[in-house]
Order: sequence, then C-alpha cells, then structure tokens
Amino acid sequence: MSKIPVLEIFGPTIQGEGMVIGKKTMFVRTAGCDYSCSWCDSAFTWDGSAKDEIVQMTAEDIWNRLKEIGGDLFNHVTISGGNPALLKNLNELINLLKQNEIEVALETQGSRWQDWFTQIDDLTISPKPPSSNMSTDFAILDRIIHNLTDHNRLEQTSLKVVIFDEADYQYAKGIGERYPQIPLYLQVGNRDVHGEDIDNLTSTLLNQYEQLIDRVVQDDELNNVRVLPQLHTLVWGNKRGV
Amino acid sequence: MSKIPVLEIFGPTIQGEGMVIGKKTMFVRTAGCDYSCSWCDSAFTWDGSAKDEIVQMTAEDIWNRLKEIGGDLFNHVTISGGNPALLKNLNELINLLKQNEIEVALETQGSRWQDWFTQIDDLTISPKPPSSNMSTDFAILDRIIHNLTDHNRLEQTSLKVVIFDEADYQYAKGIGERYPQIPLYLQVGNRDVHGEDIDNLTSTLLNQYEQLIDRVVQDDELNNVRVLPQLHTLVWGNKRGV
Ligand code: SF4
Ligand code: SF4
Repeated sequence: MSKIPVLEIFGPTIQGEGMVIGKKTMFVRTAGCDYSCSWCDSAFTWDGSAKDEIVQMTAEDIWNRLKEIGGDLFNHVTISGGNPALLKNLNELINLLKQNEIEVALETQGSRWQDWFTQIDDLTISPKPPSSNMSTDFAILDRIIHNLTDHNRLEQTSLKVVIFDEADYQYAKGIGERYPQIPLYLQVGNRDVHGEDIDNLTSTLLNQYEQLIDRVVQDDELNNVRVLPQLHTLVWGNKRGV
Repeated sequence: MSKIPVLEIFGPTIQGEGMVIGKKTMFVRTAGCDYSCSWCDSAFTWDGSAKDEIVQMTAEDIWNRLKEIGGDLFNHVTISGGNPALLKNLNELINLLKQNEIEVALETQGSRWQDWFTQIDDLTISPKPPSSNMSTDFAILDRIIHNLTDHNRLEQTSLKVVIFDEADYQYAKGIGERYPQIPLYLQVGNRDVHGEDIDNLTSTLLNQYEQLIDRVVQDDELNNVRVLPQLHTLVWGNKRGV
C-alpha cells in the first residue's frame, strides 16, 4: 500500500459545519495544500510549522489508528486538509473505510478532480472567495461539477463558501448562479483564527452570523441557501483536535 | 376554502434547528396543541395567552400574507405550531404552496397522522421525552413511521428529540433503536424559555451543547446521530418572530 501524509487523526467529535453539521464523526487531516488562503485556519497543514508532525501512513495504518482512538464509537469519517484532493491514492483509504461500513465525508476547495470523488458520501466543494487572495479556476471547477453530475452524485455534493466581506458575498452569489443545481452553504468567516478568548470569539462570530443572515434574507437572489456558523468554533474556539 | 387558525406568519429568516438547519425560510405558526409540554417554547399557541392573536385564515389568505411580507425573498416555508398535524385541512395550504413552487417543511410531535405528511419536503417528527411530562403513544408513532416508509418518504423525514436530562437521553436512544432507518437529530433543550439575558443564555446553551456532545461521542449506541443547538436562540435569544 502507498503512503498518505497525515497531520491529525482525532475524534469522535461532531462535524461543526456544512452539509452534515452536527454529525458524529472522526477526522483525518491530510498534509499539503495547493492554496495558501490568507485566513486559512489549518495553515499548519501547509506552511511548514507542523512539518515534524506529518506522518506517512498507509490506508491500513490510518484505519488502525482510527479504531485505536475511536473504538466502536463511530461510523462516519471526515477527511479534510489541507487539500486531500492532491492525493490520488486516497482511494485506498476510502475503499477500506467503505469495506468497514464507514461513511466518508470530504472537503476540498475544488482545484483538482480525483476519480474517488464519486465514492464520497458527503462531498463538500468549498471554492475560496476573494478575501482568501486565491483565485478560482472555473474551468476546473466546472469540470468537477460536470463530472459529479455525470456520475449522478449531486445528492452527495454541496458547495460551501466562507464569507468575510462584500466581495466574498458577491462571489458566493456567482457560485450559486453558476451551479444552481447544487445545495449552497454560506458560512461565516472566522477572522481571528489564533484568538484565545472564547467568549469574545463566540459573541463576535454570532454577531457576524446575524449580519450574514440579515443580508441573505433580504436578497432575492439567494433564496435557496443555507447560512451556518462553525459550531466547533462557537463551542471550542480555535482549539485543535476537537 | 376552509379556515386554518394562525398565530404568526413571519420571515424570511433562517431555520434554526433540525434537518434543514440554516435554511432560508418563512414561518407559519398554527394555533392549538394536543400536548402541553412542561418546557414548551411556544406555549402561547395553546395556553390561551395569545388567544386574541389567533386569526382564522384560508390557505389563500396565508399565501397572500406570506407574499405581502416575504415578497420574492423566499422559496421555502416552514409550518410549525402548536401541532399543525391537528389540522386536516392544512393540505389546502400545502397544495397552494407547492403550486407556487415553494418547498414546505413541517414539524409535529408525532401524535397524529395526516395524509398530507407525504407532501412535505422536510418533515420533522419530534417525539417528546419524559421531561416534557408528556407520554408518547408508540402505537401511533409506529404507524406514522410505517406510513411514511410505505410512501417512500424516508428521505424527506427526520426524527428530532430535545434533551434536557438523563431520562430524555435514554428516551432518545430508544427512539434511535426503534427507528434506525430514520435520521435522528438530538437537540439541546432550552431550560430558560423566558430569559431575556441573551449573553447568559448563549453561554449556558453552548455549555449544555458541549455536554451533550461529550455524552454522545462516548456512546457507541448513538453513532448515527446529529447533535445540534438551536441557532436562532443563540443569535436572538427567546425573541418571537425572528
Ligand atoms: S484551501 Fe483550505 S487548507 Fe488550503 S490554504 Fe485554503 S483554507 Fe487552508
Ligand atoms: S408538542 Fe410542541 S407546541 Fe405542543 S406543547 Fe409540546 S413543545 Fe409545545
């Protein structure tokens, strides 16, 4: 079996955001990203700061570790990054999880296609808005959505856009217009990914969440969306591994 | 057209809980309930305190009112109560909404079946745990789930149990065991439905949410659940009409 670069395996906990918000799950966080978003809350996956924590693991190593810490307490695993879609051989892990009747969720920004996308039960494509300083390659994103449509995977797919400012909001509307067939989730951006004052962070995030709701409910071009906060940040702040 | 007793029509806002949490929606709240849960957060729908606010409306009246306040800002309507399942003639409203390409969500405790259940896009059945002081008629609940299964409506159905204490938690586990084929949502109970100090309420609810998560993640009999807070209470406290 080939190796997968892993930075964190933790859980069980709950998924704090997106299409399966609240779901009991384990997390596997892969190392490496082709983006470098200005506000990345997982920058340690790609900025070198956690280089020494990266472990090269086979799919079986990862499964063993999941069972070691999660025991019988889970039937859902979320793979996040970094960008797990950089890893062609992730299919080995996905297959192994499915063989063990584990549901698999995965989040990626939509900069790369992998054939194993069609095996994911809850696939979140989260294109990055202007405030990230990244720019979306819409030719690739179109192809990804097209492939998922061809493989009849729309029920397992959602789009998620994090909103920090007006330009991000407009970007999200563009995404909604471009892919009206895919459920769209808007998520409040966390400007303070290193802050340690949880009470303060919670009230700031809830205020921003309220503002985003106010905006969306008055916008007749965004009738078909879901607007969500990050529950794990409300509960645990910026702590890692929960 | 026959009349429907309505207590509130408001929105657009977001759905704060359950299977379509975060969804942009309008709310129609019907009057009347066959239960009287100890911690009911909508007691004004049945305790007589808002008797003078009840308006008898036809389906068309309701639709006109929705358009009047919601304009073009919605394509989803949530019907709640009270117990809207007391109203056989609600099918007139549901049909009218569907004719206008509006998706319909509805919440009921599962004490009555109505044939129009099979027309609902997002049906939440929320049986009430012991702390409510109500007791579940499982013969009826079984029949409801059976009918929904027969009509191939499981993808549009979820179960939701509000948890206040240990007995409620055990009750929720029983619900999960009894209906393993239906997605189960556990929701943190709000003990303080009249409190006006939002900051305090938010931090209490987030603490209780964290405790419920801690409990669920250590319980191998509840692997397949989603654990959620009430987002509207986190954002707006106990205010009505948001
Ligand atoms: S795509 Fe995700 S992991 Fe990569 S830099 Fe952006 S936020 Fe961070
Ligand atoms: S079933 Fe719902 S509306 Fe009726 S008393 Fe209980 S909580 Fe209140």
